[in-house]
Amino acid sequence: MSVTIKQIKKAYDAAPQLRALDNKQLKKVLMMLADELEKQQSFILKANRADVEKQDPDNPRIDRLRLDEKRIKGIAGSIRKVSRLPNPVGKVLEKRKLKNGLLLEKVSVPLGVVGAIYESRPNVTFDIAALCIRSGNACVLKGSSEAENSNRAAVKIIHQVLKENGLSPAVVTLLSSDRETVQELFTATQYIDVLIPRGSDGLIQFVRQNSQVPVIETGAGVCHVYVQKKADLKKAVDITVNAKVSRPSVCNAMDALLIDQAIAPAFLRKLKPELEQYKVEIFADPVSHRMLKGYPYLRKAKKEDYGREFLALKCAVKVVNNSDEAIEHIRKYSTKHSEAIVTEDKKQAEHFLHEVDAAAVYHNASTRFTDGEEFGLGAEIGISTQKLHARGPFALEKLVTEKWVIRGQGQVR
Amino acid sequence: MSVTIKQIKKAYDAAPQLRALDNKQLKKVLMMLADELEKQQSFILKANRADVEKQDPDNPRIDRLRLDEKRIKGIAGSIRKVSRLPNPVGKVLEKRKLKNGLLLEKVSVPLGVVGAIYESRPNVTFDIAALCIRSGNACVLKGSSEAENSNRAAVKIIHQVLKENGLSPAVVTLLSSDRETVQELFTATQYIDVLIPRGSDGLIQFVRQNSQVPVIETGAGVCHVYVQKKADLKKAVDITVNAKVSRPSVCNAMDALLIDQAIAPAFLRKLKPELEQYKVEIFADPVSHRMLKGYPYLRKAKKEDYGREFLALKCAVKVVNNSDEAIEHIRKYSTKHSEAIVTEDKKQAEHFLHEVDAAAVYHNASTRFTDGEEFGLGAEIGISTQKLHARGPFALEKLVTEKWVIRGQGQVR
Repeated sequence: MSVTIKQIKKAYDAAPQLRALDNKQLKKVLMMLADELEKQQSFILKANRADVEKQDPDNPRIDRLRLDEKRIKGIAGSIRKVSRLPNPVGKVLEKRKLKNGLLLEKVSVPLGVVGAIYESRPNVTFDIAALCIRSGNACVLKGSSEAENSNRAAVKIIHQVLKENGLSPAVVTLLSSDRETVQELFTATQYIDVLIPRGSDGLIQFVRQNSQVPVIETGAGVCHVYVQKKADLKKAVDITVNAKVSRPSVCNAMDALLIDQAIAPAFLRKLKPELEQYKVEIFADPVSHRMLKGYPYLRKAKKEDYGREFLALKCAVKVVNNSDEAIEHIRKYSTKHSEAIVTEDKKQAEHFLHEVDAAAVYHNASTRFTDGEEFGLGAEIGISTQKLHARGPFALEKLVTEKWVIRGQGQVR
Repeated sequence: MSVTIKQIKKAYDAAPQLRALDNKQLKKVLMMLADELEKQQSFILKANRADVEKQDPDNPRIDRLRLDEKRIKGIAGSIRKVSRLPNPVGKVLEKRKLKNGLLLEKVSVPLGVVGAIYESRPNVTFDIAALCIRSGNACVLKGSSEAENSNRAAVKIIHQVLKENGLSPAVVTLLSSDRETVQELFTATQYIDVLIPRGSDGLIQFVRQNSQVPVIETGAGVCHVYVQKKADLKKAVDITVNAKVSRPSVCNAMDALLIDQAIAPAFLRKLKPELEQYKVEIFADPVSHRMLKGYPYLRKAKKEDYGREFLALKCAVKVVNNSDEAIEHIRKYSTKHSEAIVTEDKKQAEHFLHEVDAAAVYHNASTRFTDGEEFGLGAEIGISTQKLHARGPFALEKLVTEKWVIRGQGQVR
């Protein structure tokens, strides 16, 4: 047994300790953790400085790696927020008495052990640990070597609080940041119930392709806004602009705009000056390209510009004949993340909401709302673009599994 | 693009046709299918005979492969049963109005495309197709080459009914039974939402280890019955005997019996003649071995006899000091399938139900109840021993995913 597997097994063995705590006790652990983090701010900032100083100052990841007083405050605030979220464990999801007298209950219970693989941000260590503790799960963490000192300091604080609560430090286990650790996580099906990659698309794909432990994939978002011919022009402009420019680097930002032929000239006339203000680069199909003549940041769309996640002030535009063409385009190019229709025609809206297969579908609202906090679920681990277990914002409420509890009086089959 | 991938893509492209049907229409398709199957009985039996005649008559799988009038009737009956199950699609799982006026709904929707890999039983073709059609999912099926003619005949009947209902035959696609097909299924993440292996443990492990498409694993069951010291002796004997002998070849049968020291002599005295009647081979720990002296089918338990799924009239027996020892033993050896405690002490029972991590936990009832039909969920695809998406009986209700539907009046973030 390798050192890593021994550590993982220790986390698995310690997991029942967390399951045994009640809601109040779990909340208390997190409140103490937030306090302790603020108290030991200089300790963790010093460790973080050592990480930052090791880096090439031109490393673009340096900003994600760096902690400061404000960020520590933010992390402590997040931990307190997680502690106040409703308890995801112990919900009775189904309750029935069978004909033979058996009392059947399906209840939510902790998953057991959560594995996480993440990149340079040291706040992820606290995020995952807090969500796991809150939901009664042990966790094994594999951060990046760049954040080694910061992560060790973070876990030292966490361990201190765990011990003060009579818990084994193994319930939050920091694994070696070596690359080999990842291979061990991938095959530890006996001890780990779910593996969560958090970071770049490359990391997520690598984990999905190689892990035997079930993975929750939080993938890329190629999001569309479809302006139907009965759209209110003002709403359509507001939503399009918001979906594209409010935060272009995130997965719920708009990547492609589809416009009904009938409304396209009037709509684009209104939209043009708004997008120009933000210097949004437009990749237009031939029809919209003609309509956008004179727009300073205009390109001709190539085939690969559809289905592209821009993560920048860029978007594709296409004029369609009707909603069926829009729906078919989305089916072909979307990553099933967030899709919106703008229209005053209720029937058309409902048809779109029903037919489009995505984690979140919107009528007359910006795709930017797809977010755990916005949905009232609290801090999210990511937006799941897969269909099993968690879809859309993957937050505390989904860090559980189900258990059938059957109470009888001696029944046999 | 290979022939197989083209077929899979065709199923993906056709899937929206099923999603567009309402509950009544989907039910009708299944009722017609059941009728057509009975009408075309001689056609499918002839195809099946061709498969059976190809086999070595000593092939133990020949019985699973063989269809007859009674089995056809059974399959048609199952299809009708599935058609009568409650609609798993369109359930509103959550509904909330956000402060900004957005109306948020989480609803159940079809998964999209279900992939299935299975072995010689040709009834699985009908089972999976019926469950998928009922839940609005397209499916791609990879059966075994042994059942090639039977599966082709089955799908011919299914396609006829689909066409009569104006649906593309591609919504139920039978893939080539070649081994290479499996590799293509494993990587078709773009088109397949979940892959379900159905058959031997070897097949399931192979799929889990190699598939990039998410898998629902229906694994082995190493199930325990724990007779606590406050157990009612009659209930304990009834439950133990039922859990072991009523159908030893299935995954919810008991594999190991744990007995509190204090009650062990009295309990084993009562149990012995019952198990002897069925010639149950007992692998006993030293303490119970002494108590079972004279029992004709007695062996000494080796370490590997714990954690063994016997699938036969065999079981391990171990005497424990208390419930903590029993719970720890279960944690170590169980596959988290079905675990039972027999006791009249409610507090002890609740402690066990809470602490033991398994898909189904029982107080004073036989582990044999873990079953989709018994739980009132209808025909099951298997018992899921994993923790994501589906746990325990994996039935129609879990062939869905969730979708967030957000209705606004022009909201932006």
